[in-house]
Amino acid sequence: MKLTKYVDLIYDDQHLHPINKDHCSCRLPSNREIKKIISLTKELIFPGYFGKYITKETGSKGQTKRQIQILYKTLSKQIAYGLLYITDGKGVEENKKQADIYTKLYLEAIPLLRETLKTDLEAHFTGDPAAYNHDQIIVSYPGFYAIGIYRMAHVLYEMNIPLLPRMMTEFAHRETGIDINPGATIGQYFMIDHGTGVVIGETAKIGNHVKIYQGVTLGALTTKGGQNLKNVQRHPTIGDNVTIYAGASILGGNTSIGNNVTIGSNAFITESISDNKRVTEKSTETKNQLMYHI
Amino acid sequence: MKLTKYVDLIYDDQHLHPINKDHCSCRLPSNREIKKIISLTKELIFPGYFGKYITKETGSKGQTKRQIQILYKTLSKQIAYGLLYITDGKGVEENKKQADIYTKLYLEAIPLLRETLKTDLEAHFTGDPAAYNHDQIIVSYPGFYAIGIYRMAHVLYEMNIPLLPRMMTEFAHRETGIDINPGATIGQYFMIDHGTGVVIGETAKIGNHVKIYQGVTLGALTTKGGQNLKNVQRHPTIGDNVTIYAGASILGGNTSIGNNVTIGSNAFITESISDNKRVTEKSTETKNQLMYHI
Amino acid sequence: MKLTKYVDLIYDDQHLHPINKDHCSCRLPSNREIKKIISLTKELIFPGYFGKYITKETGSKGQTKRQIQILYKTLSKQIAYGLLYITDGKGVEENKKQADIYTKLYLEAIPLLRETLKTDLEAHFTGDPAAYNHDQIIVSYPGFYAIGIYRMAHVLYEMNIPLLPRMMTEFAHRETGIDINPGATIGQYFMIDHGTGVVIGETAKIGNHVKIYQGVTLGALTTKGGQNLKNVQRHPTIGDNVTIYAGASILGGNTSIGNNVTIGSNAFITESISDNKRVTEKSTETKNQLMYHI
Repeated sequence: MKLTKYVDLIYDDQHLHPINKDHCSCRLPSNREIKKIISLTKELIFPGYFGKYITKETGSKGQTKRQIQILYKTLSKQIAYGLLYITDGKGVEENKKQADIYTKLYLEAIPLLRETLKTDLEAHFTGDPAAYNHDQIIVSYPGFYAIGIYRMAHVLYEMNIPLLPRMMTEFAHRETGIDINPGATIGQYFMIDHGTGVVIGETAKIGNHVKIYQGVTLGALTTKGGQNLKNVQRHPTIGDNVTIYAGASILGGNTSIGNNVTIGSNAFITESISDNKRVTEKSTETKNQLMYHI
Repeated sequence: MKLTKYVDLIYDDQHLHPINKDHCSCRLPSNREIKKIISLTKELIFPGYFGKYITKETGSKGQTKRQIQILYKTLSKQIAYGLLYITDGKGVEENKKQADIYTKLYLEAIPLLRETLKTDLEAHFTGDPAAYNHDQIIVSYPGFYAIGIYRMAHVLYEMNIPLLPRMMTEFAHRETGIDINPGATIGQYFMIDHGTGVVIGETAKIGNHVKIYQGVTLGALTTKGGQNLKNVQRHPTIGDNVTIYAGASILGGNTSIGNNVTIGSNAFITESISDNKRVTEKSTETKNQLMYHI
Repeated sequence: MKLTKYVDLIYDDQHLHPINKDHCSCRLPSNREIKKIISLTKELIFPGYFGKYITKETGSKGQTKRQIQILYKTLSKQIAYGLLYITDGKGVEENKKQADIYTKLYLEAIPLLRETLKTDLEAHFTGDPAAYNHDQIIVSYPGFYAIGIYRMAHVLYEMNIPLLPRMMTEFAHRETGIDINPGATIGQYFMIDHGTGVVIGETAKIGNHVKIYQGVTLGALTTKGGQNLKNVQRHPTIGDNVTIYAGASILGGNTSIGNNVTIGSNAFITESISDNKRVTEKSTETKNQLMYHI
């Protein structure tokens, strides 16, 4: 099949109208490697749950070692690629050294990740009558899965590594429909039930023992400022012991939800709520006061 | 690369702070095998649609046999792993015998699954002006796909097999954004259009000829009782010939929706609705009575 | 393991109650091949971003040629399978010739796709304070990803090729939770933020510089007419410079949104809105006028 005409057309267009990369080193972080980093971290946090081989409660030391070696190699390479955005594609060797430091900090953070995720696991079990046991939550609950990936990504976000943290949470978003920006600050015992459609913005702050349902947005009131708003708090602050039911939207960087607050389904909140309040949308039948026969 | 320090740190943490499995046999059901079970069941229900090889309308008997053999082997092993949660990790041989019985009951249920899914297929075709033909629905409609997996999982849920049914519907949830708990009871001619964000709870009951759209929740009014609510009806009952438009929430185990009811987009329902009613949210422009110029 | 009883049961059922394919050629378009078509088109549009090998800014001509050859072969075969629905399973050779013409038209459209997607890329960058740079959007933003696949699919939709366009957008739907029907007409500089739960119907028309958020529905007011409504405009028309915030529903083929309009979160719109208006839902606390202590 002669396709010369189309090869010329497309190749010329690629040259005449390039999509300019943000640096010219031609080394981009890869979604496939990101997935590997997530899998390996999960296996280290939950030994014996996800690996290819059936293992004892805590794995063998040899296995843990091999997992850490592969994780180190994969993650440090991806971090080095990410750092090229800061150094404008230059300093490959220098970036490798820096990536080595960051990767080791990530490994050091794993025991803390395990500790925090155990509180989230407990919150998912006690908060859901449909949960059969803890193992079920670990192997199949999307909320717990997305929170785990967010917590890994947040460690890298705190180190200011470009692209990687968001690529990790977007992987979780694809798998679960839960979109937690890696910049968000989230306390312990966090639970997301069902989760599809949840959006938690970059500058949101969430306390301990918070439970949110599918379709909840912790978002910005407006993003008209675009890139100028980059370092402003644009998303709400949520206190401790707060429950937010399905489809509620809480918007704005000045919106603060107190402790022990319950926000009902589909509520639309743009002002602060003080401690111990309950905010509920009126049901449709009450609001309309009448219903129509067909 | 010397990583001894990190291997020690993480391995010690795995031992000092284990995440205790719910039984100690080290045999967990696997998401990869669950996916295989779903694929094989789909190929048996829709011969010639999904297999690797192009096949005649109904496949050859040899092919059907091979598919059943692999399905039997895969499913009985996973069921046996699931049963370990009931027997606290003991009785591996006894569980294998029990798993054999359950697997055969599952195989026997396949003709009934086919019959029911044909009614769902018809509902998707007649209910959607955008549907080109039936084949398009089978190969690409997420609602039909999620309903198929729910119906398979429900067969195993009825046998009280731990973990597997939910792992199956969570696979569908990941693929489609549609979260149907395998415990729900759903009649024939069921249709879900678009589907992202749909949540149908464990104790929901749905009649025949029901059509629901994206973002609909059939949920619990409160789950504050947590694990104590395990066997209580927490989710609504929906009659026959009911249509529920996008984003509506119907909550509570005492909430019952009659036959021939239409629930409008974004409605928020917490009380029962009698037969033949139409419940609609007022549109935003009517409710606000005025609009603001920028 | 003797499974003869179950093989007979299921095989007989497959024959006695066949699920009739819409044509009898036993050649169906395949989701796996659809995925390959999307990947190859993406690599041609964004050279060096997604390929297996690290490449220069615009790739080598040899690489572009190989990508085009594989794309040609894969796509023309799938189009030929799709055309069998028009020719009722007959005319395989004739369909191959027709598929060749369509595939070449698709290749010719790639430079235009690149040009349009560059406007969408710009809209995503300027519209999102959380965007680090353009590369991040290309490799990880779900809205940009789904729009790209929609634009590819729309090219094939315009050629009236059965099944393939919808299979492409349903692939995007599975990955992102964003469901754009390939029939929709969408202008330049289009942005979808977060995106989970977005539904854009087959006959929707969208202008330039439109920005929509997660959970927005541009849907039909009713689909009770089913297949009879196939060629009627059932979905709204949106002007230029319109922003639609999270969870808003705009329904109906006669509903037209003017230029420079802002639609607030969770708004429910079923009537036309004139230019320069801002329509917002009252916040829950204002609407209820009081809040209850627990």
